[in-house]
Amino acid sequence: MSEPLKIALAGLGTVGAGLVKLLASQAGLLEARCGRRLVVTAVAARDRHKQRDIDISKFAWFDDPVEMAKSAEADVVVELIGGADGPAKALAEAAFAKKRHVVTANKAMLAHHGAALAAAAERAGVTMGYEAAVAGGIPIVKALREGLAGNKIQRVYGILNGTCNYILTRMELEKLSFADCLKDAQRLGYAEADPTFDVEGFDTAQKLAILASLAFGTKVEADAVYVEGISSITPADLEAADELGYRVKLLGVAVRTAQGIEQRVHPTMVPKDSAIAQVMGVTNAVTLDVEGFPPVTLVGPGAGGAATASAVVADIGDVARGHRLAPFGRATGQLTVAGKAPMQRHEGGYYIRLLAVDRPGTAATIATRLAEQQISLESIVQRHRGMPPAGGQDARAAGAPVPVILITYATTEDAVRRALAAVKADQVISGEPQLIRIEKNR
Amino acid sequence: MSEPLKIALAGLGTVGAGLVKLLASQAGLLEARCGRRLVVTAVAARDRHKQRDIDISKFAWFDDPVEMAKSAEADVVVELIGGADGPAKALAEAAFAKKRHVVTANKAMLAHHGAALAAAAERAGVTMGYEAAVAGGIPIVKALREGLAGNKIQRVYGILNGTCNYILTRMELEKLSFADCLKDAQRLGYAEADPTFDVEGFDTAQKLAILASLAFGTKVEADAVYVEGISSITPADLEAADELGYRVKLLGVAVRTAQGIEQRVHPTMVPKDSAIAQVMGVTNAVTLDVEGFPPVTLVGPGAGGAATASAVVADIGDVARGHRLAPFGRATGQLTVAGKAPMQRHEGGYYIRLLAVDRPGTAATIATRLAEQQISLESIVQRHRGMPPAGGQDARAAGAPVPVILITYATTEDAVRRALAAVKADQVISGEPQLIRIEKNR
Repeated sequence: MSEPLKIALAGLGTVGAGLVKLLASQAGLLEARCGRRLVVTAVAARDRHKQRDIDISKFAWFDDPVEMAKSAEADVVVELIGGADGPAKALAEAAFAKKRHVVTANKAMLAHHGAALAAAAERAGVTMGYEAAVAGGIPIVKALREGLAGNKIQRVYGILNGTCNYILTRMELEKLSFADCLKDAQRLGYAEADPTFDVEGFDTAQKLAILASLAFGTKVEADAVYVEGISSITPADLEAADELGYRVKLLGVAVRTAQGIEQRVHPTMVPKDSAIAQVMGVTNAVTLDVEGFPPVTLVGPGAGGAATASAVVADIGDVARGHRLAPFGRATGQLTVAGKAPMQRHEGGYYIRLLAVDRPGTAATIATRLAEQQISLESIVQRHRGMPPAGGQDARAAGAPVPVILITYATTEDAVRRALAAVKADQVISGEPQLIRIEKNR
Repeated sequence: MSEPLKIALAGLGTVGAGLVKLLASQAGLLEARCGRRLVVTAVAARDRHKQRDIDISKFAWFDDPVEMAKSAEADVVVELIGGADGPAKALAEAAFAKKRHVVTANKAMLAHHGAALAAAAERAGVTMGYEAAVAGGIPIVKALREGLAGNKIQRVYGILNGTCNYILTRMELEKLSFADCLKDAQRLGYAEADPTFDVEGFDTAQKLAILASLAFGTKVEADAVYVEGISSITPADLEAADELGYRVKLLGVAVRTAQGIEQRVHPTMVPKDSAIAQVMGVTNAVTLDVEGFPPVTLVGPGAGGAATASAVVADIGDVARGHRLAPFGRATGQLTVAGKAPMQRHEGGYYIRLLAVDRPGTAATIATRLAEQQISLESIVQRHRGMPPAGGQDARAAGAPVPVILITYATTEDAVRRALAAVKADQVISGEPQLIRIEKNR
């Protein structure tokens, strides 16, 4: 039996406390699976005397996590502080300088400094594990980096933010507004007081950037991701999607195209019979389109102390077994700079919802503007007065605008934007058009 | 850069040829991901001169795979011959004797000799990879052994046989009989001329035994699995399931119970909204119930040359990186003998379909017999004459037997068997009762 693996832990919030508990409760299992004991030796957190439901008296205490990374008795330093920069990054750099492995759950740090940190780990001859940074309890990093190591990935996409999926699920099932569902999500602790980071897609974008790097061998680049959130989605959109055979999910999508790697986060229409469409509530899911065989989908909890701690333990286990994986699956010198495929050149089908003014010639004008941009329509649904409108909220008086829903065949973002600008200039619609991209199964 | 990893390959069927192609087409990717080249040096197959769409002229040829395992220039021997015993097992033993790693797709060999082979690998200080043996392209072995290394698994269950799921899907969607769907599956190459191994559940049982060992740290024991196939399932059952909110899937289920590890394969009613119920056609899926957080489900192709070859490559990649995992996740000396939980003591809900003779007192007799065994009913559906019967095939003449469908609350297999034996002895039913176990989401 080898020496125990010594762990220094920075951050004692939900995940950190969950990690201490998991290491204790599954000590025997972990020793059997790793061939050695996993032992916490040191901890650092903001307040030593805070009331916690774990006993930290046996661990060396550090007020300064960076000092801990340098001088604690440790083989691996676990970073659960968070934040792209600041102490988290300083801690990782200090650990690498001392040739200590790092395990982190910090998506922001990886999305912004992933390639540089991987290079530092590589120079030090140590590893950096971050299974917990993407989709919590789902072992997606391992699946991409090792499980499908021999497969060319064409596309990776998924539901990476439980808050958004919870809100969209409630909106769909209970026909509620975004604002009402957000309030409930906040009350239940699924959404922050300032929900922007989640609902506007930034959280998903950081996770997607990490997955794209793993899938395509590119340097993580969070700024290369096009981001659109779910706050503009209405019950009318969800109802129309349902009628047309789709569901609306906030997806992160990274895909190889002729223009380079396209990375985008936006509300997306997915076919109701796809695996990803079945994923409801706070659950996360990731689908991998690989060359040569049908897609592989992983579904599970994306957040929560226990699920995230489980992913941290998996990474610690790899370190304990002596596995020395390159953080992004290959030597950092081999990571390429992803050509950022501009969103204007995105190709795909579109759902467009307009409020058309109710006067002769409106339909002809809209059809003409689309035709000018070579956009073909798969379907048109127009709600006449007297028929229940899709959202149940539109005015029905004579002369009031009429909701029109268009589904296009594959076209480009640019063409759609131009056509809608022209339609707006023609003053045949009221308000802003709603636009949701359609993502097909392979 | 390290020395290339040398691979000797036994078996050049669909998977073997797919492997040679994948190693060639993704050579650059694999070298980047593994840090060294992966090179086939030797092959063995039945017929050297068979027409193949791969060029084997650069590889050393062996007529005898066992001889190849002993004397080829190789670090790892890949076994794609199949069969629980015979040359496959001899090859593995010969490779271990020479301290060579083994990668195999052979579920039968693992189900019957897994623990002994793992012990031989351990003595030799080498590894035995078998990601390809269970659920082809789904990296489930890696997920269980490494991705969820720190989690106590409560239950693992899944759709592990694409043939059965294809047949059940067609039966459900097109209201066809088992026999008709089987014929189609055979015509399309999804089922063998003798389909017994697939449709009677034996293939699923072998895979389940392997998953159970990984999940629970027990010695693989294929004979400990209770096995029931899908040939008795009728469209009437699928229609009744649909009405009651279920789908019928052939599941392999391994679960911790107070009586020990229960391992069973049988047609199963799963709630329509569960992840596993969404899996249609030849696709496979595995759900892991772990302690402390919601289930994790992996969905993907379970068979096919490319998907299976991909799993073989993942195992070869682990060998190339120097990862030395215990085949069943822990030292073989720590694998326990699973207490076989007897099927009679299985606890759960049951779907029971009877043909009740149409005379006064029948319902009372059936109800009494169930009550005598303390069985409570969640629902009863009786099709009266004049109403369309569930399957559309039952006689409707006065006096003809009437289909009755019962859903029980949780009870034991033993109680259900006793109650049905009593009902039969009472001669109030015609023919054999149909019985399908219900598996709830956690």
